[in-house]
Amino acid sequence: MSETHAELRAAYRSFVAVPTRWMDNDVYGHVNNVVYYSWFDTAINRYLIREGGLDIEKGAVIGLCVESHCRYRRPITFPGDVELGLRVGKLGTSSVRYELGVFADGEDAAAAEGWFVHVFVDRDTRRSTPLPEQLRAALARLSSG
Amino acid sequence: MSETHAELRAAYRSFVAVPTRWMDNDVYGHVNNVVYYSWFDTAINRYLIREGGLDIEKGAVIGLCVESHCRYRRPITFPGDVELGLRVGKLGTSSVRYELGVFADGEDAAAAEGWFVHVFVDRDTRRSTPLPEQLRAALARLSSG
Amino acid sequence: MSETHAELRAAYRSFVAVPTRWMDNDVYGHVNNVVYYSWFDTAINRYLIREGGLDIEKGAVIGLCVESHCRYRRPITFPGDVELGLRVGKLGTSSVRYELGVFADGEDAAAAEGWFVHVFVDRDTRRSTPLPEQLRAALARLSSG
Amino acid sequence: MSETHAELRAAYRSFVAVPTRWMDNDVYGHVNNVVYYSWFDTAINRYLIREGGLDIEKGAVIGLCVESHCRYRRPITFPGDVELGLRVGKLGTSSVRYELGVFADGEDAAAAEGWFVHVFVDRDTRRSTPLPEQLRAALARLSSG
Repeated sequence: MSETHAELRAAYRSFVAVPTRWMDNDVYGHVNNVVYYSWFDTAINRYLIREGGLDIEKGAVIGLCVESHCRYRRPITFPGDVELGLRVGKLGTSSVRYELGVFADGEDAAAAEGWFVHVFVDRDTRRSTPLPEQLRAALARLSSG
Repeated sequence: MSETHAELRAAYRSFVAVPTRWMDNDVYGHVNNVVYYSWFDTAINRYLIREGGLDIEKGAVIGLCVESHCRYRRPITFPGDVELGLRVGKLGTSSVRYELGVFADGEDAAAAEGWFVHVFVDRDTRRSTPLPEQLRAALARLSSG
Repeated sequence: MSETHAELRAAYRSFVAVPTRWMDNDVYGHVNNVVYYSWFDTAINRYLIREGGLDIEKGAVIGLCVESHCRYRRPITFPGDVELGLRVGKLGTSSVRYELGVFADGEDAAAAEGWFVHVFVDRDTRRSTPLPEQLRAALARLSSG
Repeated sequence: MSETHAELRAAYRSFVAVPTRWMDNDVYGHVNNVVYYSWFDTAINRYLIREGGLDIEKGAVIGLCVESHCRYRRPITFPGDVELGLRVGKLGTSSVRYELGVFADGEDAAAAEGWFVHVFVDRDTRRSTPLPEQLRAALARLSSG
């Protein structure tokens, strides 16, 4: 449903499996558009926690979403398996733009593509703060540039 | 968290209340970014059903989301009440671009703004099809132009 | 679908509106069974916050769900409006059993009935603790006994 | 939080992985009680589709949930991995009682246990109907008796 070409798996640096759930499907028989964003959040935060040392419960710095976007190309249906591809499009002082691809089981071309911007803030004051070093290093490894 | 100015209530044509739910809040104590898109879907489809005659169960024409976007300005928290404002940014032959504002209880400036593109398709073939007349008339009443 | 009689509105003490959302409907065209539990959580916590002084962000005492149950009698469908009825079935020293009724718009007999048990615990140690006095008083007002 | 003993993995006949998602966690830092029911639905329907030939899009017979229950013993937290264990407790002419165990990564004792009753109905009339033979055979293989 889009004039542009779908991204391929090779364009992403890290992958995570996000199996579909029964309730992801909506009345029209496919995964609802909202659910894709829950996959984005999941792929990003799993990476930040496991590779970047993000402590979502007690850490001093947390990432808040300030903007997100998704383009849907082909439907995905429960009970299919899905993989999310992740790369970093832009790594700023206190913000990051992630780019994500949604891949249906065994397909090389993305069924959907999105982006998502985190601003990192102090947990208590909610003011923006530079990324901690471990987090920055982990994100630099996903940079597409 | 954005340099641009938030949209005001007066910029929208139709409103619907979408009370928050307990599980909308995430670990950081505010409504998760994903939930805003479920409000978009809800505001749009309630309008299409109630004003445009959309029959989501048996109608020959259905609307599929091909692109969506949200900019988050200020957090929203359960158990707050929220209102969604809706207008139509562009009304094509078989597609519509909706523009939405998220308003926390009693506030005039949007806490978030988004847009969402529907392509209308034949339910069985999933090929794009012109909007039925009743739907087009209902959407024309929301046009901002 | 049940041999027992549905509860009526008069059997409940407090009510809250929980409008359906587009994605609540599942493939079979009705609100998914899972969603009813999100309404339970919402009705209970709205009452605890607004009437009982529960502070979900910083309070020393929080309520954790240890058991829940629902019986489904008739389907509910987006974009319908729903009201939740709430009463307290048993009020213990540190636990509460809530009983809930799900009412479709304008109907007097419940479309579903459920119960839900909270154990109140210290936020940090997660050990059970007696209910704070304001909370207990608010819950006593919902007792059916 | 319960006097009874948790069920062990050996008590279940079929398992499915259901990785947690970011938004599964609620304000208290653990997976919300509602989400467990979405895992139940997912484990059951994946089995019915893959082993029992259930066609959720066009099949003449569908399963509707008429009752569900969950007991929560220990919290589960994103980004943990979870496995659902499934067995059949009672296989009737047109209904099935499933029993489910929720297992955190690497643990042998269930973090939660639930049950869930499906009544099978004709998709159009929504009247109860005997289970199709392929479905019955697949469910018989999960019987604990």
